Amino acid sequence: MTGGSAAPPSEAPLAIVCGGGSVPQAVAEAAVRKGRRVVLFPVRGWARGDFVATYPHHWIALGQAGRFFRLARAEGCRDVVLIGAMVRPAAWQLRLDWPTVRLLPRVLRAYRGGDDHLLRGVAGILEDHGFRLVGAHDVAPDILVREGVLAGRAPNERDRKDIAQALGLLAAMGPFDVGQAAIVAEGLVLAVEAAEGTDLMLARVAELRRQGRVPTPSGSGVLVKGPKPGQDRRLDLPSIGPQTIDGVASAGLAGLAVVAGATIAADPERLVQAADRAGVFVVGVREDETR
Amino acid sequence: MTGGSAAPPSEAPLAIVCGGGSVPQAVAEAAVRKGRRVVLFPVRGWARGDFVATYPHHWIALGQAGRFFRLARAEGCRDVVLIGAMVRPAAWQLRLDWPTVRLLPRVLRAYRGGDDHLLRGVAGILEDHGFRLVGAHDVAPDILVREGVLAGRAPNERDRKDIAQALGLLAAMGPFDVGQAAIVAEGLVLAVEAAEGTDLMLARVAELRRQGRVPTPSGSGVLVKGPKPGQDRRLDLPSIGPQTIDGVASAGLAGLAVVAGATIAADPERLVQAADRAGVFVVGVREDETR
Repeated sequence: MTGGSAAPPSEAPLAIVCGGGSVPQAVAEAAVRKGRRVVLFPVRGWARGDFVATYPHHWIALGQAGRFFRLARAEGCRDVVLIGAMVRPAAWQLRLDWPTVRLLPRVLRAYRGGDDHLLRGVAGILEDHGFRLVGAHDVAPDILVREGVLAGRAPNERDRKDIAQALGLLAAMGPFDVGQAAIVAEGLVLAVEAAEGTDLMLARVAELRRQGRVPTPSGSGVLVKGPKPGQDRRLDLPSIGPQTIDGVASAGLAGLAVVAGATIAADPERLVQAADRAGVFVVGVREDETR
Repeated sequence: MTGGSAAPPSEAPLAIVCGGGSVPQAVAEAAVRKGRRVVLFPVRGWARGDFVATYPHHWIALGQAGRFFRLARAEGCRDVVLIGAMVRPAAWQLRLDWPTVRLLPRVLRAYRGGDDHLLRGVAGILEDHGFRLVGAHDVAPDILVREGVLAGRAPNERDRKDIAQALGLLAAMGPFDVGQAAIVAEGLVLAVEAAEGTDLMLARVAELRRQGRVPTPSGSGVLVKGPKPGQDRRLDLPSIGPQTIDGVASAGLAGLAVVAGATIAADPERLVQAADRAGVFVVGVREDETR
């Protein structure tokens, strides 16, 4: 019943290297909806096992570049998507295969330094082995948040100012290869994300509020996420999911703003339900809303 | 034995409004060493009680601007130093006296918004009541960190790069009125300080390291503190003390760099001892070491 050999080269199966969280599943589903065949390469210790079994797949470990290259070639894959959380592991967590060992000096150079640096290094290595790194949004554009209100009320004037301030801050930090999120409440920067990730940043603000150390009342403040300026968008686009909404609500914020067209919403239906239940807004904004 | 009425007007006693931490004591001692009379106004709930009793003093509560104005005038004070940690309290922690209530609209305008905004508001209010806000470093310049290595080894080439990256990041964030510190390890920004303060930021990095989420080995990375660009240096200069060293050591960092001439070292002797014991360096750097 399937087209088989009639498929054009671009319709070779898509290799999806799956890290943690719910985004990899959303990407796989969206690619399949667009008629693309996919082969998953879930990363042991990071990828969720639950959805993987319903797709052709091969588990890989971090450090098994050789195994990945071999299996992906055997499956006829050329395009590769890297998606999902893969916090930088400590060296002892890596299980290096021989091709990876030979790549090691290059990997280590990429590994030290900021995320941009790491990701550019990975893209170059893939390309030298005959693969093409593509963005999740290239194969599944409908996973991206669009401009406008997704859930809850529209941001008010005060929220808009907080959003603009956070976007300006993120833009200013861009050249220094730091996080993709900040929390601003009525002009006060409550938190800036770096290595800890969005969820831990939200938990910190929830704790500061419990301690009475946030001067603005509960229900004020916005979490703003966006891609770093100049970031290679084939890699590491920021993403939000239902758990982000839970964090926003626990931190007593009014809502969540993300850069439209450059942020992935995993499981948008449950995300909107969670936002409506918690009474927080979710809005896609233009990156240049700074001024 | 004292000069009494022969003192010039600038030698009227100095009012020191004391928040938390060990910096207020260091400022009082340094001012007295320079021959200045001081009257302390320790803030209830924040100031340490131990050293206060050895000076003329009046306890005040947050929100008792009227009581402060009255007592400071009665003591003949004109110059006022505000020093020490005073995390923004929740509204229910304030005990407002009547003059404060009348100032309230102005205080609230200053209170919302970032630190710069708050501090400029406070300076204006003091001046309208006949006082002059002076910087702790104006009355006690020897509490400022000087350029060069204070403790431990000299920063190596890698440390220098991390320091320059952090200074650049802090400078870029300046216009957005955010924290005064960041932690960079081998080019990777591990943490940026906002409302949580330096100690909590250090604890976060210690936790990330315990979880194996910091890719660079223990003993790499630098905490960098500096004043915000354009910040009114009469207020809220960054400060370090022995507990900062403990945090730097727990976070597995190589050392601590501060902007020379614009950072207060409280209790420098114990600070150097703590640094030598922990094997971390402390260095005063020029703010323009960015490039």
